[in-house]
Amino acid sequence: MICTPICEMLGIRYPLFQGGMAHISDAKLASAVSNAGGLGIITAASGDVAWVEEQIDMARSLTDKPFGVNVMLMGRNIEEIAALLARKRVAVVTTGAGTPERFMPMWKDAGIKVIPVVPSTSIAKLVARSGADAVIAEGGESGGHVGDMTTMALVPQVVDAVDIPVIAAGGIADGRGVAAAFMLGAQGVQIGTRFLTALECSISPVYKAKVLKANDTSTIVTGRRLGHPVRSIKSPFSRAYAKAEYTDISDDDLENMAVGSLPAAVYSGDEKKGSFLAGQISGMVNREQSAEEIIKEMFEETENILNGAKKWVK
Amino acid sequence: MICTPICEMLGIRYPLFQGGMAHISDAKLASAVSNAGGLGIITAASGDVAWVEEQIDMARSLTDKPFGVNVMLMGRNIEEIAALLARKRVAVVTTGAGTPERFMPMWKDAGIKVIPVVPSTSIAKLVARSGADAVIAEGGESGGHVGDMTTMALVPQVVDAVDIPVIAAGGIADGRGVAAAFMLGAQGVQIGTRFLTALECSISPVYKAKVLKANDTSTIVTGRRLGHPVRSIKSPFSRAYAKAEYTDISDDDLENMAVGSLPAAVYSGDEKKGSFLAGQISGMVNREQSAEEIIKEMFEETENILNGAKKWVK
Repeated sequence: MICTPICEMLGIRYPLFQGGMAHISDAKLASAVSNAGGLGIITAASGDVAWVEEQIDMARSLTDKPFGVNVMLMGRNIEEIAALLARKRVAVVTTGAGTPERFMPMWKDAGIKVIPVVPSTSIAKLVARSGADAVIAEGGESGGHVGDMTTMALVPQVVDAVDIPVIAAGGIADGRGVAAAFMLGAQGVQIGTRFLTALECSISPVYKAKVLKANDTSTIVTGRRLGHPVRSIKSPFSRAYAKAEYTDISDDDLENMAVGSLPAAVYSGDEKKGSFLAGQISGMVNREQSAEEIIKEMFEETENILNGAKKWVK
Repeated sequence: MICTPICEMLGIRYPLFQGGMAHISDAKLASAVSNAGGLGIITAASGDVAWVEEQIDMARSLTDKPFGVNVMLMGRNIEEIAALLARKRVAVVTTGAGTPERFMPMWKDAGIKVIPVVPSTSIAKLVARSGADAVIAEGGESGGHVGDMTTMALVPQVVDAVDIPVIAAGGIADGRGVAAAFMLGAQGVQIGTRFLTALECSISPVYKAKVLKANDTSTIVTGRRLGHPVRSIKSPFSRAYAKAEYTDISDDDLENMAVGSLPAAVYSGDEKKGSFLAGQISGMVNREQSAEEIIKEMFEETENILNGAKKWVK
């Protein structure tokens, strides 16, 4: 059994967070992860307050274990979402796309553990100073919105920069990645891509098939020109967008190209218009399994690897 | 003491390669690394055959330990360089920017171990089939010419793809990184950025100062538009180049912008024109030390971390 201080802090069995994936991470997936001993996370990134409340209530009916909600701080309706999470007293809030100082007092008063996703040491220090309970250091090999830093380079530098626990995210899909994250000083991992093919994940079959078929070089980053890089599986849409970035298309037209591309992937599996967000580790995701199987398998591997960690020490 | 099969294969004490850095990795640095028990590597990337021969002879006068030479397969004079390496019977050749099939018979006949740098599983499989003795899986967090994949995502996928030893490169500058690389299945590491500030590294003081001062977000990738991405420390040159990539500048003019930028950094420390190549891990490189101190310290840390690897296993 593997247990780190983050397990005790949050009352979870495995030091594993399921990533908050926009339009994807719902009550069904989050409760399955929480029931399996990880920290399931519902996305509030769509900004639909009623939907988020419904999902929180549904998750509570499906599990008595703690779960979290992920918010995009630059999203619309963020004030309403923030207030909802305080009112519902969710166990954990993870945040992305900004820093959560202004909501910190309200959330802490509600007993919420606040764990921001950070792309750099400076942001990590800033959120630690404003009372974050831990940080998720996410490398740009992850799917969806990405930063410049990679997991290997970011995690140890964040560990050195703050005194709170660090969760490693990006490029982790099996026990080797979990063990590596521990070596870098992380106390846990956040997993997104591998849960895309979980039996409890409700994305379109086309989306799942793309992840299962992907190899190591199947993903691409688009959106750098506008300062909002996103990693997805190469597709007609992502290739066209990548090409357009180096043309004289206006920023507005470029922005418009991407509108609706994520829902088109998640709900309709539209191969032409869809943006199939996924990480570089997609090449290692080759099976559909339950969340419980994924988590058990990953930590059995981790334990075996850690038990054999001294094999090169003579 | 840490020893992996790659140590036995090459007759080195530590499973550590010093990266072959164009215009930087000379006999002085390589022999210092080899004398300290790692595998020093001389760069042949400048394409100057007489200089490479001189450096090989000099390294042989400075160490009786094995060392390697790194070649850029798309470089000019590559045929002459390849023949020189066979004639000199160097212990190890590492290759970048292409695959070395056509030189394989000549090099193997000369008793050379051939270890290509690979950016993907498909290239790893290709070079393994053509007789490579090991591969260096290099993530894009490294300095200089970079691929898309990151170390965390690339290394385990390459380990699964080939039956020869895998050396991890990119984002590694201390014992945590070495231990993490082992967890991912690597049998060794290649270190570039940390050797930039080695006492035996002859780059300009301005270059060293930039690495010492860098933090985690101090590097930038330029050159994606022309398909030759390069990571360097943010500087007037790199920022101007990055901006130009999204303008209507012609490809030729863009190419010309970069001519001479590396020598300007290495030899003259020219802050305006120089391209100061370095990896994301620059933020963790804060001291000037001898190559021996660097290697000893790194593997003492690794051993301590591996000895404590089971701390979370209950």
